[in-house]
Amino acid sequence: MTRLTGRALRLTVFVGEHDTRHHKPLYAEIVHRAHAAGLAGASVFRGIEGFGASSLIHTSRLLSLSEDLPVAIVIVDTEERVRAFLPQLDELVTEGLVTLDDCEVIRYTGRGHTPPEPPEEDAGGKNTEGKRAP
Amino acid sequence: MTRLTGRALRLTVFVGEHDTRHHKPLYAEIVHRAHAAGLAGASVFRGIEGFGASSLIHTSRLLSLSEDLPVAIVIVDTEERVRAFLPQLDELVTEGLVTLDDCEVIRYTGRGHTPPEPPEEDAGGKNTEGKRAP
Amino acid sequence: MTRLTGRALRLTVFVGEHDTRHHKPLYAEIVHRAHAAGLAGASVFRGIEGFGASSLIHTSRLLSLSEDLPVAIVIVDTEERVRAFLPQLDELVTEGLVTLDDCEVIRYTGRGHTPPEPPEEDAGGKNTEGKRAP
Repeated sequence: MTRLTGRALRLTVFVGEHDTRHHKPLYAEIVHRAHAAGLAGASVFRGIEGFGASSLIHTSRLLSLSEDLPVAIVIVDTEERVRAFLPQLDELVTEGLVTLDDCEVIRYTGRGHTPPEPPEEDAGGKNTEGKRAP
Repeated sequence: MTRLTGRALRLTVFVGEHDTRHHKPLYAEIVHRAHAAGLAGASVFRGIEGFGASSLIHTSRLLSLSEDLPVAIVIVDTEERVRAFLPQLDELVTEGLVTLDDCEVIRYTGRGHTPPEPPEEDAGGKNTEGKRAP
Repeated sequence: MTRLTGRALRLTVFVGEHDTRHHKPLYAEIVHRAHAAGLAGASVFRGIEGFGASSLIHTSRLLSLSEDLPVAIVIVDTEERVRAFLPQLDELVTEGLVTLDDCEVIRYTGRGHTPPEPPEEDAGGKNTEGKRAP
């Protein structure tokens, strides 16, 4: 296992689950772009309730909002790489919120036998531990 | 599309999914109050496991906790507006945790044709992109 | 209700939902260790999509990733207690990401009748409000 530490910038994008880009979920397009841009990782979390700038709340229980729930896409990488990705969000997001905040990171990669190599980026095999991390 | 940037305060409230306020989920009441207070948005995320100050963990797999899962309500707005909302949390939350942290925000609102107007706050219509954002 | 405020460190661990430790979900083991270490709370959130250091994305819709979704474990406590927990993550996590960031906290505990006592830590009974908080 290799342990890397340092400073990073966390990017969180809040959009609607049903927001689309060319008939594809917008959040999926953002994750795809993040991967294509070489960012270290991305994780998408779906909310169970919410409202945003243009949402309507007609009932106190917000039942009317069940149709389009919020999703949050979290990306953590170096400040330089995260900021280089922002123009793509400008292109993709028409309504939504992006937050950026500094954090300290500890990144665990691989299992110690081959520290200098990126772990199985192009391999077809699967390992069963530690596969997802933004 | 209008792009607004600046500093903001992120408020995260952690309570139990089954916590109630007058027979209504507490998280829904908090979202309702946030909307009524004019905050820019709120998103609620449900956890799949957890423990807090008064929870009991009797098994190592935490099976006993499946009954009341954690929820996190995330609100992002100006520091002034977020802090003005805190007394309402004092009134509502009997057990739980609130975190506050600074962040940089980029807010996308509307589609560029009517930048100075708030996008469809009072309209009955729906648009299919970018409806949710805290 | 007792209201405690102060500075804290928020720890977020991103691993895969199917990552295991001795045939048990890794995220459950981390929560168990956090509880055993006396940390104030932990909440686990499951993502709906994502990629990390060693993940493969073969399609633009990321359909191939549905098998191992990201999970985020959020822990908030004093800096000292959170940092004392990090060696356990070094032992447990082979691939994944940990972020640490400062935040301001407001912690609500109990209901005001017995402020000096920890609320029902050892009691068998359940209360229906405010049971979960990291």
